[in-house]
Amino acid sequence: MKKIAVIVAGGAGSRMGATIPKQFLLLQNKPILWHTINAFTQTFTDIEIIIVLPEMHIEEGKSIADTFKTSHKITCIQGGLTRFDSVKNGLTQITEDCIVFVHDGVRCLLSSDLINNCYHQAKAKGSAIPAVAATDSIRLVEGNTSHIADRNKVRLVQTPQTFKSNILLEAFKQPYQDSFTDEANVVEAFGKEVHLIEGDYNNIKITRPLDLIIAEKILEERK
Amino acid sequence: MKKIAVIVAGGAGSRMGATIPKQFLLLQNKPILWHTINAFTQTFTDIEIIIVLPEMHIEEGKSIADTFKTSHKITCIQGGLTRFDSVKNGLTQITEDCIVFVHDGVRCLLSSDLINNCYHQAKAKGSAIPAVAATDSIRLVEGNTSHIADRNKVRLVQTPQTFKSNILLEAFKQPYQDSFTDEANVVEAFGKEVHLIEGDYNNIKITRPLDLIIAEKILEERK
Repeated sequence: MKKIAVIVAGGAGSRMGATIPKQFLLLQNKPILWHTINAFTQTFTDIEIIIVLPEMHIEEGKSIADTFKTSHKITCIQGGLTRFDSVKNGLTQITEDCIVFVHDGVRCLLSSDLINNCYHQAKAKGSAIPAVAATDSIRLVEGNTSHIADRNKVRLVQTPQTFKSNILLEAFKQPYQDSFTDEANVVEAFGKEVHLIEGDYNNIKITRPLDLIIAEKILEERK
Repeated sequence: MKKIAVIVAGGAGSRMGATIPKQFLLLQNKPILWHTINAFTQTFTDIEIIIVLPEMHIEEGKSIADTFKTSHKITCIQGGLTRFDSVKNGLTQITEDCIVFVHDGVRCLLSSDLINNCYHQAKAKGSAIPAVAATDSIRLVEGNTSHIADRNKVRLVQTPQTFKSNILLEAFKQPYQDSFTDEANVVEAFGKEVHLIEGDYNNIKITRPLDLIIAEKILEERK
């Protein structure tokens, strides 16, 4: 089945204390976004990539895309104000049935195993949302108090959130709600159950300076 | 007010792929447990430390304790089968009103600021449980399905879980329940509300080999 990855790279990077948005920071001399794209193109020779970027960084995205072989179609398009708007803009490029991976641009350590697993599970079940169990105790806050949550029932959600295109495109026709912080929530609000699969603890989001150091170590260990 | 830290160092370390329990692995040439004790003794000149260890590692705990100044009373005692039992054994050593910090031996990066904050908040409110907001989306699993949780309401709980001794000692007289995975849960089951305070993202638990590398980096940056 055709495969398309929508990579959301819209962040402004303020938490990194850097003026460059974090998707362009260098990791082993290549931009974080390069590593993210590379994970998908290394997994599937026939995958198409749509990168959603802030307007002022589209040219930068294009020059990263140009370093990949022309066998992979890579398009850079402009994002919106919210993640929902950005993904929706990305989805406008999809015109045929496929499996869509929606992925955070700054989760550059995702493995081919995880991408493959997402693909097969989404193809079989309509969706595949990678998630990992919490290693800490969890509490749920209600007003000024909190109560215990069963740690075994809590999952920390990652990306690529992967769907059959028909489900995802229909779900994204809904009007925006504040709860639409990820694609699983959009699809769930549309009345479709989402299917969780086992994520990967190394599939971290680069949000703090320390995460870049962790990412360097994970890449070194893979060699 | 008198201060006592009960440090739970009962782990067998199987996740580290090491035969040495992780609390004894070296970080900047000192055992992880040394760093943990040091954080407390550096914060309060008058704190007493109770280290709860597996029977076969008590001597090892004692030799770490011996490297600290004799001005701090440090006792090593044997743990039990569960965390609840281990903490309960530690609490038997407490005979006067005080503030009790119950802390994971492998959270060796806790800061003096956090310890101080726990102390003052527990003194004022009876308890202080450090916790941080989740940075990922959260789902709650129910049987074969899952549903979205409001990320703003989810807190990942850390230690030192800090209490006025009278509350904690009374709560630990309850018979064991499976939900007693941390001290906050024990106190809550006893009918007392617990008070969450802001934790620290760097206050990590050393559970995987990668965590040791992260810990080295955090210590380097503090210098």
